[in-house]
Amino acid sequence: MRKIAESTVRRLSLYLRFLEEFQSQGIATISSEALATRGGTTSAQVRKDLSFFGSFGKRGLGYSVPELVGKLRDILGLKRTYQVVVVGAGKIGSALAQYPGFGQRGFHVAAVYDADPKKVGADWNGLVVQDVQHLEQDLARAPVDIAILATPAAAAAQVSDRLVQAGIRAILNFAPVQLEVPAHVVVKNVNMAMELEALSYALRNR
Amino acid sequence: MRKIAESTVRRLSLYLRFLEEFQSQGIATISSEALATRGGTTSAQVRKDLSFFGSFGKRGLGYSVPELVGKLRDILGLKRTYQVVVVGAGKIGSALAQYPGFGQRGFHVAAVYDADPKKVGADWNGLVVQDVQHLEQDLARAPVDIAILATPAAAAAQVSDRLVQAGIRAILNFAPVQLEVPAHVVVKNVNMAMELEALSYALRNR
Repeated sequence: MRKIAESTVRRLSLYLRFLEEFQSQGIATISSEALATRGGTTSAQVRKDLSFFGSFGKRGLGYSVPELVGKLRDILGLKRTYQVVVVGAGKIGSALAQYPGFGQRGFHVAAVYDADPKKVGADWNGLVVQDVQHLEQDLARAPVDIAILATPAAAAAQVSDRLVQAGIRAILNFAPVQLEVPAHVVVKNVNMAMELEALSYALRNR
Repeated sequence: MRKIAESTVRRLSLYLRFLEEFQSQGIATISSEALATRGGTTSAQVRKDLSFFGSFGKRGLGYSVPELVGKLRDILGLKRTYQVVVVGAGKIGSALAQYPGFGQRGFHVAAVYDADPKKVGADWNGLVVQDVQHLEQDLARAPVDIAILATPAAAAAQVSDRLVQAGIRAILNFAPVQLEVPAHVVVKNVNMAMELEALSYALRNR
């Protein structure tokens, strides 16, 4: 499979959401135009995005909604569940560990870790904050797929190294730090200030 | 100015961060190659991204770091401060309202609102949760630039309408709902599950 851009993957995630909406409304087929309108993009873009993964849809008939939902879930790796750990039990870590949207998508938060003795042992709706000292031990016993890194900046590099050493291959990084990881590990950085900058850009340039 | 893609704006935000790092290390000039290496992209991409905004840099000499920092801050609308309100004082709203990275970038969280009497009046490090009933009244008295929408899905559309009615032109939406807003209002959706899907995609397709 060709390497596709992050922005394409993002649109595939969006299309999947729209298609699931259509499906819940009992809509059986959808044109690339309708999908484009819903997503604020063009039908050419929709067709191009989907063409990366083989041929879908019939000219003049559009796409079968359930078929395309299944295919997108497959492409996005959503036909299985993922075990996730959150490291860092601060405000962002707390919000993420209890984010209802993760479970709905098959991302199961298995554990939360922190280094602060005042946080360790706290019970968040049944999820008990664990001591990060036991991270390697726990991951050896019950491997996980994805780590969400929500530590302070100063701790991020060290925690990232420990996660990689323990076999983690995917990190969602909320710490404002560029992580250095081996090539087999994928990191996605989330920076809330950058999300606001997309808006300040729009306000400045309209 | 041409309309540029959201992914380009995102890279500009990233370049600005890298350039500020270089600046703090006392580096005066930087090549597009070095900027590309730091950002995991190509020098052609860097030059293309920056070319949208006029000509920068001198062939063979690279870009002046302070000049490019200033220019990027200008392009991204970061030469002023923005007043921000957060609507929804749940876990995500709480994390965002107290996110240190916003203030550093000139985004000032002026107020937080909620409809729940149990949350109204709570003091978050000096930021007191306000009753959303007073939203219009407060915005009329002290206009703000950007609203962060962090309500439950069921309340999002109504709150969005009220924000738009009250003159808000930019919304960062964390509710898992597609908002319908007039053309003069810009909405950026943030969906944490979609961030994880970029990782499940990578795990599935490596």
